[in-house]
Amino acid sequence: MWPAALAAEPVRRALAGATELRQRTLRLWRTPESELAATLRRVDDQLTGLEVTTCLRDGELEIVTRYEPDADDAYGRLVAAVTADFAGTLFSDGPTVDELVAWALDERGWTVAVGESETGGLVTARLTEPAGASRRVLGGVAAYANSAKEQLLDVPPATLVDGGAVSPAVARALAEGARARFGADVGVGVTGVAGPGGGTPEKPVGTVHLAVVGPDGALAYSDRLRGDRAAVRGRTGTLAVHLLRQLLLGGPPA
Amino acid sequence: MWPAALAAEPVRRALAGATELRQRTLRLWRTPESELAATLRRVDDQLTGLEVTTCLRDGELEIVTRYEPDADDAYGRLVAAVTADFAGTLFSDGPTVDELVAWALDERGWTVAVGESETGGLVTARLTEPAGASRRVLGGVAAYANSAKEQLLDVPPATLVDGGAVSPAVARALAEGARARFGADVGVGVTGVAGPGGGTPEKPVGTVHLAVVGPDGALAYSDRLRGDRAAVRGRTGTLAVHLLRQLLLGGPPA
Repeated sequence: MWPAALAAEPVRRALAGATELRQRTLRLWRTPESELAATLRRVDDQLTGLEVTTCLRDGELEIVTRYEPDADDAYGRLVAAVTADFAGTLFSDGPTVDELVAWALDERGWTVAVGESETGGLVTARLTEPAGASRRVLGGVAAYANSAKEQLLDVPPATLVDGGAVSPAVARALAEGARARFGADVGVGVTGVAGPGGGTPEKPVGTVHLAVVGPDGALAYSDRLRGDRAAVRGRTGTLAVHLLRQLLLGGPPA
Repeated sequence: MWPAALAAEPVRRALAGATELRQRTLRLWRTPESELAATLRRVDDQLTGLEVTTCLRDGELEIVTRYEPDADDAYGRLVAAVTADFAGTLFSDGPTVDELVAWALDERGWTVAVGESETGGLVTARLTEPAGASRRVLGGVAAYANSAKEQLLDVPPATLVDGGAVSPAVARALAEGARARFGADVGVGVTGVAGPGGGTPEKPVGTVHLAVVGPDGALAYSDRLRGDRAAVRGRTGTLAVHLLRQLLLGGPPA
């Protein structure tokens, strides 16, 4: 009945007459919503015909704009204003960070492997989400136990003793171990305290250390995240993908 | 202001007089919603005062009931009817399958490790979701590449050649390899075709093989799941946790 209704002449005419609404997305990394709001206020009188909504999630600020085709110029002015004010943090004019990373890996024909402790498989699961993941992701080791970090990812026992399992050096060793063991072009390493237990005054819940190591260099990032166990784990996953993006494509630092 | 308002005598009286609504959940595994509906219709006249909703998700049928305290007896009759009709598939009178598995492992002081291909880290990520995961989950290897299956989880090359990477024998070898490599009490193995690519006439998209191996025995399960890549991966994760539940607690087969 539904296909028949769609094919009926009155319905087809009504659909053809309906406004073709465009939707475009810009994505900024680590930009306060208030700064974006100031920019939008400044150029507000040039944005007639645009319906702009913004959403901040896990450090990503998403600007979704809906408009009819005749507001195309106004959208161009919005993009110009955002690009001018946020050149350092604008990382996408559409694709998600996960898509950007997948495309960048495929373009170079590179593979990736993960050594993760705190996130317990979440980073590998996220990298294997997009279709075609098997050509770019060789795998990952979720090494909660220190013995697994040593035996499966070659983290030196001394490194675990010196700074503890939650340290920048262990994140780096996890990335290098994953890269070597899987024979991948890029290695990702993650360690931290997801909570609710396990925190100490020196390493409170939310402490995370990440590293990515590629053929031409390495990047590291440390932070103290807020939120409950699920939030800390999820945000660490987002940080890992952004650190990969920075290694592969440059742009705003994780 | 809010605490002060709550402490004020008129508000306290109003709150005390408010109805205390109870909410209870029953969970069935692999039970068609239509069969449950037939049971509910049969005993409908004994369920006065109960507000019953049912939800089917990934093979789990959830029965959520809200009622005032004076309908306690009616709820008892509902539980009796469901237990009588679905003794073989009722697996919980409240906790999620993830909670049941975590508690069962903790009660025995057992640890678990995962070797997963198709789910790419998702099963390990799910097992490490609950707080306190580090005492029961030693880790997991997400082995997309066959070389990783061989080198990190000791899957015999001949097993990969004989039945291909997606086979019951490889699921079993992944479980045994994870168990041995991490030194865990229980090993979980998962392989399959999540799609959209990679399917063949013999092994179409959705084909999954799972195995769990414990100190006292092993269980295996194979299925062909419907849905897109994300659905197949998610449902495989649910199957893995149910297979663990069956090994640890008995009850309805995965």
